[in-house]
Amino acid sequence: MPGATPKRKGARIENELASRLWRLGYAVVRGPASGSGARRRFQPDLVAMAGGKVIVIEVKASAGKRPVYIESSRALALTEFARRAGAYLALIAVRIKGYGWRLHTIDSLEPTRGGNFKIADPLKGLRLRDLDNIVRGTKKITDYM
Amino acid sequence: MPGATPKRKGARIENELASRLWRLGYAVVRGPASGSGARRRFQPDLVAMAGGKVIVIEVKASAGKRPVYIESSRALALTEFARRAGAYLALIAVRIKGYGWRLHTIDSLEPTRGGNFKIADPLKGLRLRDLDNIVRGTKKITDYM
Repeated sequence: MPGATPKRKGARIENELASRLWRLGYAVVRGPASGSGARRRFQPDLVAMAGGKVIVIEVKASAGKRPVYIESSRALALTEFARRAGAYLALIAVRIKGYGWRLHTIDSLEPTRGGNFKIADPLKGLRLRDLDNIVRGTKKITDYM
Repeated sequence: MPGATPKRKGARIENELASRLWRLGYAVVRGPASGSGARRRFQPDLVAMAGGKVIVIEVKASAGKRPVYIESSRALALTEFARRAGAYLALIAVRIKGYGWRLHTIDSLEPTRGGNFKIADPLKGLRLRDLDNIVRGTKKITDYM
C-alpha cells in the first residue's frame, strides 16, 4: 500500500490479525488507536479470548529477517496488563513481509544494550495454528521450543 | 454536560466505568466506537479481566427508574462474543443519574413485545463492589439474588 502512513499500516495489520483470530473462533477486541483515557490506562493492540483464556497481543510489522525492537515501557505495560488480566499468554505478533505472522512470547524477548527489548530473529516465532493448538490444549508451548 | 452528543456521552461514561474498574485492579479494554472491521466483528463497549476471568460489558445511561432497552441484535451479539471468549459474565452496566452504576447480567433481561429486551428496574442491579466480590470469589452471584 504505497503512501500508507505508519499509523494506518499499523491499523490495517492489526485488523488483519483480528480477523484471522475471529475466523479461528476467538473473541477479539482491538483497542482504540488513541483517545480519551487510552493513554492513562494502557491498552494492548489486541486482546483475543477463547475458552476463558486471555491472550494479550502487541502487533509489529517487519520487512524480513531484521530484528524487531520493542520499547521497554511498552513491554512493561504489556506485562502489567497481562498480570492484571491473569492472562494465559502475552505475545508480540510480527507480520513479516512474504512470510505471514510469527508470534513471540514476551518472555522470549532479548534485552538490548540501550535498555529496550528485541526479537533477534522474527521468523523463529510460533505460527497462528501453533497458537491455536496451544490454546485449545492440543499441544503444549514447550512442544515448540 | 449540556450539548454533549449521545455518542460523546456514551464515550464519556464508558471511560468513567473503565477507569473505575482499572482502579479496582482490572485489566480493561475499551473497543473503538466505530471504524475498520469493528462492524463486522462485534465488539462490546468494554472487556474487563481479572484473575483469568473475562467480563464483557455493554454500557447504557439512564435518567432514573425508567426501563432501559437493549436491541435484540446487540444482546445476541454480546452473548455470542461471551460464548467465544468463554466469559465469566456478560453484563449491561447502567449509569443511573444520581445513583451511580448498576450491573445487570444478560440472563436477567426481560423480553419486550417487540422482540427486544429491557431492564425493567435499572436500580435493582449489582453495584461495582458486588461485582468485585463475585469476581474475587468473596461472594457468589446467588448471594445477590
